[in-house]
Amino acid sequence: MSLVADAETPTLELRTAAYAVPVFTPRADAPVPVQRGSFPLRVNLRHGGSVDVVLRWQILGVQEAPLLIVLGGISAHRQLAANALDASEGWWPQQVRRGGALDPFTFRLLSIDWIGADGAVDTAIDPDDQAQALATLLEHLQITHVAACIGASYGAMVGQHLAKRLGARLGHLVVLNAAHRPHPFASAWRAIQRRIVRLGAEHEAAHEAVALARQLAVLSYRTPNEFAARFTDKVALDGGVARCAAEPYLDAQGERFANRFAGTAFLRLSESIDLHDIDPADVPVPVTVFAARSDQIVPVEDVRAFAVAVPLLHRYHEIDSVFGHDSFLKEDAQVQAVLIDALAGCGGAA
Amino acid sequence: MSLVADAETPTLELRTAAYAVPVFTPRADAPVPVQRGSFPLRVNLRHGGSVDVVLRWQILGVQEAPLLIVLGGISAHRQLAANALDASEGWWPQQVRRGGALDPFTFRLLSIDWIGADGAVDTAIDPDDQAQALATLLEHLQITHVAACIGASYGAMVGQHLAKRLGARLGHLVVLNAAHRPHPFASAWRAIQRRIVRLGAEHEAAHEAVALARQLAVLSYRTPNEFAARFTDKVALDGGVARCAAEPYLDAQGERFANRFAGTAFLRLSESIDLHDIDPADVPVPVTVFAARSDQIVPVEDVRAFAVAVPLLHRYHEIDSVFGHDSFLKEDAQVQAVLIDALAGCGGAA
Repeated sequence: MSLVADAETPTLELRTAAYAVPVFTPRADAPVPVQRGSFPLRVNLRHGGSVDVVLRWQILGVQEAPLLIVLGGISAHRQLAANALDASEGWWPQQVRRGGALDPFTFRLLSIDWIGADGAVDTAIDPDDQAQALATLLEHLQITHVAACIGASYGAMVGQHLAKRLGARLGHLVVLNAAHRPHPFASAWRAIQRRIVRLGAEHEAAHEAVALARQLAVLSYRTPNEFAARFTDKVALDGGVARCAAEPYLDAQGERFANRFAGTAFLRLSESIDLHDIDPADVPVPVTVFAARSDQIVPVEDVRAFAVAVPLLHRYHEIDSVFGHDSFLKEDAQVQAVLIDALAGCGGAA
Repeated sequence: MSLVADAETPTLELRTAAYAVPVFTPRADAPVPVQRGSFPLRVNLRHGGSVDVVLRWQILGVQEAPLLIVLGGISAHRQLAANALDASEGWWPQQVRRGGALDPFTFRLLSIDWIGADGAVDTAIDPDDQAQALATLLEHLQITHVAACIGASYGAMVGQHLAKRLGARLGHLVVLNAAHRPHPFASAWRAIQRRIVRLGAEHEAAHEAVALARQLAVLSYRTPNEFAARFTDKVALDGGVARCAAEPYLDAQGERFANRFAGTAFLRLSESIDLHDIDPADVPVPVTVFAARSDQIVPVEDVRAFAVAVPLLHRYHEIDSVFGHDSFLKEDAQVQAVLIDALAGCGGAA
């Protein structure tokens, strides 16, 4: 059977990845195996009702290796890195690469498109709903053990709920730039983003509003120090209107996002962050935690509170970074070290 | 001549306040004298052209006392505190009161409505344009010496330009929560606020957009720690939509502001902050500086850079505050102490 499967075949027969399998030695010149599927399922939503969704998944990596689940922020998706089915760069090529911490010749990397990311669900989506969908997908794929779940930002919230659901079937949880609750200030920041989108939707300006909300989100993901170092030009008048140095960057970020994200998708996934609520005591697996002291929307105090309250803390890492919440995407060497340490016991190839 | 003048008389004859006048002893039961006027003038704008404006001013306090100019943020105005002409509370009653640091029985307090605050000017307004208007008003009022200018936020930027213009005619400048430049991150934050307002204006949603922009501004004026302490309720679903604890507060702030601020006024005054640009070496008077380490839009590093670069630093105060940029409005005891120290040499009544 070819490991490069039909992109839309939901019923692939996959062998179960055993935990702590013998070290697998890949051929040095092999292409990265990749599988994709679209799995229709019904999710019983935590906040009422059920929805029929199609969960789009991808598995990148060699079949014999331990399985990792890799989850990013609300704008992330199943495309972790370029592969034979999709040449686009993906959202985490720094880590997901040959020789990287998430080497697809060492691990099998399962990723998904978030429920709601296609704009098809217009009801409240709890992070635990994503975890429920993931757990159902694992059953469908006959995966009985997950060596580790690596979650960043929203993905780390979903990972917490997944750990609660999987229990001993999950070997390790890595929480990057997330805590057990949304911070009230960050919630307010996101609430304003959602209001922008709703205002736009009500006044036939949905695209511009989503772009603007994304600009505001980007601001919250970075830090004043990064902007100070990066946008050094003075504010200038352009056609009689002040234009500050960061605006072209924010414009590009907003436009790129609005071109692929519908207003409903943004509203429901942003909201989902704010619905996150879990008792760290209910996360019953070894946990590695990574935080940046400059994170504006996940204050380090909240991450510390999470780390000290989980029953099985493996390691807590806290760094200075000019990149704030985006440090998981930007501090590549430090994140790699965190991941390598966390995955050391997960049975991948050396 | 009554000190309570016609509210709209622009040509009041006022005696000049001398610097370091003999200590004046008010009657303990006297009402606070107040004068108001509307002064028409032409301002030659720094960024091109000239505009005819009406500068609405107020002088609160006893005629014999040293004159202070008191300037607040872009949403501030000439109404510092309740008086015989206007019973509304004003924006700084904590300091402007009998027995306060800015006691109208000790000082004469000159304040203005910002040029542009009425929405009548739709062109770029530099903070120095406000200083030019103030200098012209002083001539008109035959005030040849100003004991001190107390400026907070935008008002402190205008104060820096005023000091440069007045030179030895100004005795002291108090700079609260401001620096010599807009910070690039804060500029980006404000740029997004202005984009919200412009989006609303283009889509017949001006009022909602101004309210939303104000909510975003309020967020930047406060701190995550204040929100964490104040908005402790968990995010709840209301009609299927997440509502976070801070939203009623932000709603009220936005609505109140949108009811009195036109979109154009907000755009041009917000922009004016971003046009602020002065060499601290050009501020030729004794300067007192006050900063909060938690200020999100005027990072304390910028305020320190300003303070060390002015030629005549009197005192630099830096505090911890949960209120960030709004500390000048909230840390009343500490601000009072700063003002009392700064004004000790200004010849007011003890």
